[in-house]
Amino acid sequence: MGVYEKMSLIVMKFGGTSVKDAERVRNVAGIVTDSYKKDNSVVVVVSAQGDTTDDLIEKAAEITAHPTNREMDMLLASGEQISASLLAMCIQDMGYPAISLTGWQAGFLTSSAHSSARIRNVYPDRIRREIDQKKIVVVCGFQGVSRYDDITTLGRGGSDTSAVAIAAAMHADLCQIYTDVEGVFTADPRKVPNAKKLDEISYDEMLELATLGAQVLNNRSVEMAKKYNIELEVLSSYTKVPGTIVKEKVKMEKMLISGVAKDTDVARLSITCIPDRPGMVFKRFSKLAARNINVDVILQSVGRDGTKDIAFTVAQNKGAEAKEICEKFADTVGAESVDYDDDIAKVSIVGAGMESHAGVAAKMFEALYDKQINIRMISTSEIKVSVIINKDDADRAVSAIHEKFFPTDN
Amino acid sequence: MGVYEKMSLIVMKFGGTSVKDAERVRNVAGIVTDSYKKDNSVVVVVSAQGDTTDDLIEKAAEITAHPTNREMDMLLASGEQISASLLAMCIQDMGYPAISLTGWQAGFLTSSAHSSARIRNVYPDRIRREIDQKKIVVVCGFQGVSRYDDITTLGRGGSDTSAVAIAAAMHADLCQIYTDVEGVFTADPRKVPNAKKLDEISYDEMLELATLGAQVLNNRSVEMAKKYNIELEVLSSYTKVPGTIVKEKVKMEKMLISGVAKDTDVARLSITCIPDRPGMVFKRFSKLAARNINVDVILQSVGRDGTKDIAFTVAQNKGAEAKEICEKFADTVGAESVDYDDDIAKVSIVGAGMESHAGVAAKMFEALYDKQINIRMISTSEIKVSVIINKDDADRAVSAIHEKFFPTDN
Repeated sequence: MGVYEKMSLIVMKFGGTSVKDAERVRNVAGIVTDSYKKDNSVVVVVSAQGDTTDDLIEKAAEITAHPTNREMDMLLASGEQISASLLAMCIQDMGYPAISLTGWQAGFLTSSAHSSARIRNVYPDRIRREIDQKKIVVVCGFQGVSRYDDITTLGRGGSDTSAVAIAAAMHADLCQIYTDVEGVFTADPRKVPNAKKLDEISYDEMLELATLGAQVLNNRSVEMAKKYNIELEVLSSYTKVPGTIVKEKVKMEKMLISGVAKDTDVARLSITCIPDRPGMVFKRFSKLAARNINVDVILQSVGRDGTKDIAFTVAQNKGAEAKEICEKFADTVGAESVDYDDDIAKVSIVGAGMESHAGVAAKMFEALYDKQINIRMISTSEIKVSVIINKDDADRAVSAIHEKFFPTDN
Repeated sequence: MGVYEKMSLIVMKFGGTSVKDAERVRNVAGIVTDSYKKDNSVVVVVSAQGDTTDDLIEKAAEITAHPTNREMDMLLASGEQISASLLAMCIQDMGYPAISLTGWQAGFLTSSAHSSARIRNVYPDRIRREIDQKKIVVVCGFQGVSRYDDITTLGRGGSDTSAVAIAAAMHADLCQIYTDVEGVFTADPRKVPNAKKLDEISYDEMLELATLGAQVLNNRSVEMAKKYNIELEVLSSYTKVPGTIVKEKVKMEKMLISGVAKDTDVARLSITCIPDRPGMVFKRFSKLAARNINVDVILQSVGRDGTKDIAFTVAQNKGAEAKEICEKFADTVGAESVDYDDDIAKVSIVGAGMESHAGVAAKMFEALYDKQINIRMISTSEIKVSVIINKDDADRAVSAIHEKFFPTDN
């Protein structure tokens, strides 16, 4: 990474597994100080240690089945306070100046939506002051403070967003997201052995992959990086190899697609025989939107006697609620029946290259046809093609599609 | 407690064992809501759960043998954040409005002496706002924030001080300190079976008892209660019986003394044959004071050839340091030898009654003589008499003295 050798400000984010015990904390301190020794200013964002968050959730569960979000945030925010102070101690123990800061100390002002707060602004004055004193600043990710001075959390995975927000507020030169994988792969390397690591990927492709369940980066963090044009690097805290750079424009590559992703957190609802009157579809989706349920793949078809059938997918944890809404809707408008199925998966290919290349979707369908995998729904955008298939077929489908686009070399 | 039935503002403090698990948290929530139901405004101060603080200290020890105090405070302060949010959840679960506040949210401004910060001021605006909204306010004890916005801790036992400080700042009507004993006893009830619980005790007596190792209340908290004239009640979170009230003036009772206390955290140093020149004693004690070593019982006697012998006691953890200073001093001035002994104990009787009653000390000495316990040093003040004896004799001495002043009824 020759470009970054004279870099001045790097934000590094380490997830829960990267700081799960004393040994891993020492490892992170090593990575951080290596960068600091190269004359970089370093801000480190950490998540809670390994199972801390789950342990705290269990503590709450022993007290009440319905904790309020405000108190849960208070409880969970202690997790990063622990990991951040331990990492700062460790860096100090190695002979380098360090200081840990909570979300409020680091200037994270958020909305008051406890448990899923949005960052409103980052006021990095304190961080800057510590950086000016040549300190390595360790910031609690995932948390902030509302304008009522209440501690908030950004929801799971929010530490990525914390890191990008600091990078944006401080005009950092790079934001490194350390995980337990070496970068962004063309498919899940645990499932597809010949998956290839990408050197670069565009924000848009990364967004599609994150949405599609690749689970490398939190979606909001990528959106924010795109908005403020922050260069991200996804890399491993276990191996010292360059990761994947996420940025606006990537080198044109021979690869048509950048990855194949699988998402099993999906449920399919279908309503049959809806009377074909204007506003029917709008009405139903507005009801779902009002309950904060995002509808993904949508299929509308003509049913018997001039009625319509509509099928769509939602996240699985919203499935029951969506079903209930749809059943009420079906009753009201006199539709026939509502079907629910969560034994399905969404498999997608993503790639900026497909915009200018015909036949990408066809190639994907061919791969599925070769394996006799039935496609139940299809959805496409400029840079992705998704299919809904049976859950049992998902891993086979990913392998087959990956092999079609990235043939094994031997 | 008829007097308190129409009370408006009560501060309650619960220690670590009182909130150590879900069951104990529920018990505390019961005590708190019982008081709230009687139309009291309630502010609750909590320590970290049971072993949390020790667990966190161990986590730090796995990282470094020499953590900085600033980062230790950051780490340890998470402990009360956990217990406070859990208690608030529990109270809410029982159907009452509650909110937890960290030290900084509760307005605790402290000095910057990390790990042993002093409370500079409490700005209870937020607490008052929540109280006005009829909420039960649960405050993290033991912690605050310095003027640099850094999280500080008051040192172990500091939660008592937190509670009294809030009571003072808010002009509370009563500050209840819940512990695992039912109040202040005439002797340690685990050692002296017929020890009696006191209904009342004065601040000064309580201070002497705290200093003397009775370990019921943190000393600074009693000093602060005295200064701001806050009525304290020491009582048990396990049983629903009235505790001991600590206040300025107590009812005149028949009892001459309020308690017998034992302190084994004491070491004795003696220097023999110090040349008898002016300033010798001053010089040595000023050296100890400079190192922050408090000297307690002092005995000076004439030795051989017009020299002096001096013996004094210090806290045991300062013993080695004090010995070193004394040996240097002995070398410099040409004294003969320095003896060190930490196999001793200090046993004391405390009582405002003894000011006006002669013969209290004599009665104590008689009790010791009866048991053939050798007295090595004696020190007295208006309201206490302390003797230094061999550690092995300590428990027998406490029993004998207690029996002399509080004879068993049968």
